[in-house]
Amino acid sequence: MFAESGWTALNCEPEWGGQGLPKLVAAPVSEMWKSANHAFSLCPMLTSSAIEALVLSGSDELKQTYLEKMVSGEWTGTMNITEPGAGSDLAAICSRAVPQADGNFRIFGQKIFITYGEHDMADNIIHLALARTPTAPEGVKGISLFLVPKFMVDADGRPGERNDVRCVSIEHKLGIHASPTGVMAFGDKGGAIGFLVGEENRGLEYMFIMMNAARFGVGMEGVSACERAYQRARDYAKDRIQGTDIGVRNGAKVPIIAHPDVRRMLMSMKAQAEASRALAYVVAGAQDKAHHHPEADVRKQNQAFVDLMTPVVKGWSTEIGIEVASTGIQVHGGMGFIEETGAAQHLRDARISSIYEGTTGIQANDLIGRKIARDGGEALKTVIGMMRALDAELATQGNEHLVAIRRRLAAGVNALGKAGEWIVATHASDVHATSAGAVPFLMLFGIVAGGWQMARAALIAQSRIDAGNSDPFYQVKVVTARFFADHLLTRADGLADSVTEGAAGVMALAEDQF
Amino acid sequence: MFAESGWTALNCEPEWGGQGLPKLVAAPVSEMWKSANHAFSLCPMLTSSAIEALVLSGSDELKQTYLEKMVSGEWTGTMNITEPGAGSDLAAICSRAVPQADGNFRIFGQKIFITYGEHDMADNIIHLALARTPTAPEGVKGISLFLVPKFMVDADGRPGERNDVRCVSIEHKLGIHASPTGVMAFGDKGGAIGFLVGEENRGLEYMFIMMNAARFGVGMEGVSACERAYQRARDYAKDRIQGTDIGVRNGAKVPIIAHPDVRRMLMSMKAQAEASRALAYVVAGAQDKAHHHPEADVRKQNQAFVDLMTPVVKGWSTEIGIEVASTGIQVHGGMGFIEETGAAQHLRDARISSIYEGTTGIQANDLIGRKIARDGGEALKTVIGMMRALDAELATQGNEHLVAIRRRLAAGVNALGKAGEWIVATHASDVHATSAGAVPFLMLFGIVAGGWQMARAALIAQSRIDAGNSDPFYQVKVVTARFFADHLLTRADGLADSVTEGAAGVMALAEDQF
Repeated sequence: MFAESGWTALNCEPEWGGQGLPKLVAAPVSEMWKSANHAFSLCPMLTSSAIEALVLSGSDELKQTYLEKMVSGEWTGTMNITEPGAGSDLAAICSRAVPQADGNFRIFGQKIFITYGEHDMADNIIHLALARTPTAPEGVKGISLFLVPKFMVDADGRPGERNDVRCVSIEHKLGIHASPTGVMAFGDKGGAIGFLVGEENRGLEYMFIMMNAARFGVGMEGVSACERAYQRARDYAKDRIQGTDIGVRNGAKVPIIAHPDVRRMLMSMKAQAEASRALAYVVAGAQDKAHHHPEADVRKQNQAFVDLMTPVVKGWSTEIGIEVASTGIQVHGGMGFIEETGAAQHLRDARISSIYEGTTGIQANDLIGRKIARDGGEALKTVIGMMRALDAELATQGNEHLVAIRRRLAAGVNALGKAGEWIVATHASDVHATSAGAVPFLMLFGIVAGGWQMARAALIAQSRIDAGNSDPFYQVKVVTARFFADHLLTRADGLADSVTEGAAGVMALAEDQF
Repeated sequence: MFAESGWTALNCEPEWGGQGLPKLVAAPVSEMWKSANHAFSLCPMLTSSAIEALVLSGSDELKQTYLEKMVSGEWTGTMNITEPGAGSDLAAICSRAVPQADGNFRIFGQKIFITYGEHDMADNIIHLALARTPTAPEGVKGISLFLVPKFMVDADGRPGERNDVRCVSIEHKLGIHASPTGVMAFGDKGGAIGFLVGEENRGLEYMFIMMNAARFGVGMEGVSACERAYQRARDYAKDRIQGTDIGVRNGAKVPIIAHPDVRRMLMSMKAQAEASRALAYVVAGAQDKAHHHPEADVRKQNQAFVDLMTPVVKGWSTEIGIEVASTGIQVHGGMGFIEETGAAQHLRDARISSIYEGTTGIQANDLIGRKIARDGGEALKTVIGMMRALDAELATQGNEHLVAIRRRLAAGVNALGKAGEWIVATHASDVHATSAGAVPFLMLFGIVAGGWQMARAALIAQSRIDAGNSDPFYQVKVVTARFFADHLLTRADGLADSVTEGAAGVMALAEDQF
């Protein structure tokens, strides 16, 4: 039904049956899938990654044989990357690809944590797997990408004989229970037939091309976790009658949303959902411009923005997704701890997003190393310049909320600038120190970037209010931005201090002193 | 076995077979039970609360009949407080107690979330239940406390006939799966026989007397969650080989504890475990002095300290227990999300502690209202005075870690003082504003109080080092305090701003704007 309605083809290339819609449309749609069912949403997300790999690097024959069915959703796709000894460290991958007389390969090895590695929801599963050929150099430069179908495709394009790749176990996980996470055995019965995707030894390069999209997609899981946790908690808080208004004895019983602390929790959920969403959509729009804008300069600028912000969207949104889902449980009180209520599932589901597709630590090191130190902080300075340009606009506003928002944002931007300069100045000479501050820096960046987007939204909303528009949406937006400023942006200075002065406490102990 | 070894009797009155050990001994022992098995530890904890209620308020006959078996662990106890419509709002309790000709009562009603409400681990279960007599006034002043045994006790003191209280359902919870949480039906078959504990309509008062101990006990769950999550993550980080030392290409593979971000996570777990433990033990020591010190003045001072700090120990420690358990999952990467690893269970278990025995919001409102505003901030000022006295001692130290610790602690104490003064000045005139900042204030208090204890420990440790003691324990303590200062105390200023200036964003929206 989902596939028949064409949802899987939303942002795929029209050449293979896709609708070719912009990322700025696809991202909000995918957010809704993720909010509705995180576990299910992984199947189209992983399939989409596999499609992208084939479109980018597959031979015409592979494209002809597989793409149309994958775009249509008849077949699903997987990414077989992780091995027991190779998680964050892809250099340690040791699955083998043995060349055959017919030009194809036999694949041997074990892959773990394979999302939708096995199921019977589709007629075929198209595994993309990383493995080494016998002549491959060591490390990350000796990894190739292979297509390994669950069922071999016959001359008529139909699934035929079973290939020698099997799911040997399904993991018992904390969350996303509806997503089968498989341990996959390749080649237990003579070797799984695999087809080389692109050129030998360039597998990791192909993975990196897809990685921005995949990381952005997981970042959207953070946004969706915030939203679904917020909606459930808000509904409960409006329904649940408990106590009287604070300060009133023997008054009428009120719904708990009347209690200031419940309201604070709901506002923190709402504000973080909206801030992370705004930031993600801005990055989605930049992706479209980076790919399709007619001017090369604009494409380049947007790509630099996307490269810089992707680890922030991935790392920050998924971390706050966990925090917000946990707050959602708290709003429910004791009922939040009961599984039937549903609030606990949001935390269980959200907890994976800061781990897979590169942990927050991996994102943060990518951010400070490849995205900031490497260009001497240029891309970061450009973004800080955009934030300061907004400050000039905010300076014209007299509304008390906007005055407060401007003050907090300015302090946050200064903190981000200071911490960024320290990273640029320190990374080459003391990578342990900058790496020790990498996650606090990523969180600082996320908060300030989220506050920037909330301030932008508040400015526009206030201009509508000033023009006489009485839609309450605008007033709510201004208040939500105000909350974000006073409760989230206030964390910025402390985080900046942890970045620039926190390494001593992190690195001083010997390993055996832990 | 647990009961036979005498553990259940550790801090019970010797008159009933207990060992009468100080809280300062009982608290660390209970921490170990909680770390070993949070779910199981609830059974002795709840039994201990029931024992305390009987010792405080029970008639001689009730004491003679029940206490010895409960102290020995042969029988267990429960607290039947919550009802479907009465969670945080105890005024809404509507279970009924109907007086009988024999002077006892028949109890009717439904209680939910009853920890160890039903099991076959002990020969009898002694339920303490809150209910209303027919003549009771409305609200919290009309609640009485009853003892309702699962099996009626015969003339020889042995469990006999089944009483009319039954577990009708066991909840499916996020965590503490080994703890049976029951929905209890009283009086479905004519009325459960109940014995009044103490005087009619004074049930809530008795509950409040026990509440400090129970809240302290749940606070210790936060400490134990930090510790067990830390131990597991540390062991994994030393074992798991992944990647090379950062900045080194093609070097030897290292355990992940070598990576700065993993180390940062472990230090944050270790530092918060030690800070919350130190604070809790200091409060445990004050409890002993409050009860047993020969001088009335000292008893009074210590009781004031215990009253002030109990909501901080309960609220802050349980909140950081959740954060630290979640960090423990992150240290494990993908393995952390697999249930067999065990890290996920720590988060699932820890998640209840900030909810039961009064949510963090309830603790925070107790803190700012009863414990701070009511005495015009006197008790708080006394504690801040103790913190500033430590600052004078720290001022004599030249070691770079202690210099940094002093600077951060001084900033934190100032932030706490500022926020506290604002609460005292504002609570009477705008309780919605102070209540909106109550949880940020509680977290601020916890961080500063934890930092205070870490600084105390660091000062002592440094004096040992200066005296030539080479036990690495002391150096580790100084470094851990340094980490706490740069990564936790740095949050203080931002939290104080959220307290004093954050209410506008919390309270501005109408309920239908959520």
